[in-house]
Amino acid sequence: MALVLHHLNASRSQRIVWLLEELGTDYDLVSYARNAETHLAPPELLKFHPMGKSPLLETDEGIIAETGAIAEYLMARFDQERRLHPKSSSTDFPIYLEWLHSAEGAPFLPNLLSFYFQGAGLTETPLAQAMKAEQKKAANHIEKHLAAHPFFGGSQFSAADCLMGFNIQNAEMAGVLKERPASQAWLDKMRARPAYQKMLAIGI
Amino acid sequence: MALVLHHLNASRSQRIVWLLEELGTDYDLVSYARNAETHLAPPELLKFHPMGKSPLLETDEGIIAETGAIAEYLMARFDQERRLHPKSSSTDFPIYLEWLHSAEGAPFLPNLLSFYFQGAGLTETPLAQAMKAEQKKAANHIEKHLAAHPFFGGSQFSAADCLMGFNIQNAEMAGVLKERPASQAWLDKMRARPAYQKMLAIGI
Repeated sequence: MALVLHHLNASRSQRIVWLLEELGTDYDLVSYARNAETHLAPPELLKFHPMGKSPLLETDEGIIAETGAIAEYLMARFDQERRLHPKSSSTDFPIYLEWLHSAEGAPFLPNLLSFYFQGAGLTETPLAQAMKAEQKKAANHIEKHLAAHPFFGGSQFSAADCLMGFNIQNAEMAGVLKERPASQAWLDKMRARPAYQKMLAIGI
Repeated sequence: MALVLHHLNASRSQRIVWLLEELGTDYDLVSYARNAETHLAPPELLKFHPMGKSPLLETDEGIIAETGAIAEYLMARFDQERRLHPKSSSTDFPIYLEWLHSAEGAPFLPNLLSFYFQGAGLTETPLAQAMKAEQKKAANHIEKHLAAHPFFGGSQFSAADCLMGFNIQNAEMAGVLKERPASQAWLDKMRARPAYQKMLAIGI
């Protein structure tokens, strides 16, 4: 099957680049750049999907949007050996599912909102302050998980690590990993992976 | 397996009540109420999960958070007959995946942000205005999909309908379904389902 990833810089799309590199599946990458002023995705993406967001995966079965959906599609079609996602009978399965969805869920949303508030100059509002507290709660939750499990999906490296990576990289840039050794150790471990390095080379 | 749903009023949890009722699986419901002033979830939920959000599903395999993860867990454990989720070999599979994730993804986020902005009295900011435009784009995207497919997951009713329901109910309350007949028809069809009616009786 021919795969084309419509990739936008500084977006969730880097998670899928990493996952595709871990899979070792052939794919083509088409790159788009955010508008330098507004930071919005360019209108070209609207040609492929009505929401105009990235990542978008072009497949023989049509275009797929939503990072988590693309990840699950890739697992179903290209990971029959279950290298990157646990069997549903395994004890890791519910853990894997929770973190796969956490990448867009409660542990991620306060980061997204804070990013928007910063861009809009609204950091001093009570809502922005509440989001800061939620961000700290999320970072502590992640730290506790990674202190108890080697990977987001439990005992094995999985697609959940690729999806959560974006959060941890951002946490490091925000300087909050200094007090969170398990999160820092996880990130260092990921950096040693050839697929992670390829993702960085392709551009995040 | 004993299931306990930790349910919060006016939250994503209603999606899981509906899904559990569609499955017809036994479960216990423990209800929590939002703080009348702050509209936040009560601190009791923090006893069960570090993020303190609802829905939370207590299972023999531990507590699971994140609506999408709970839905996928229920499908794997209680829907062997595939009444509520398509086989991965089916043409519906990528469509199902995209909408399952869209319930927390690009078509949902502008609604969530607009809700927060309204609560914080920030509706006149450029960011809030941009979110209004995104909401409209999302509503049009949903309308186009439902004009072409009878259900969110394609040809069959599925867990994706339960997860997206919250969005469409909110759109109706906001008065935007008048110009969107396919979305209105989908909602009317859902209202005829006994499991949907049970969800309403339990309280949304």
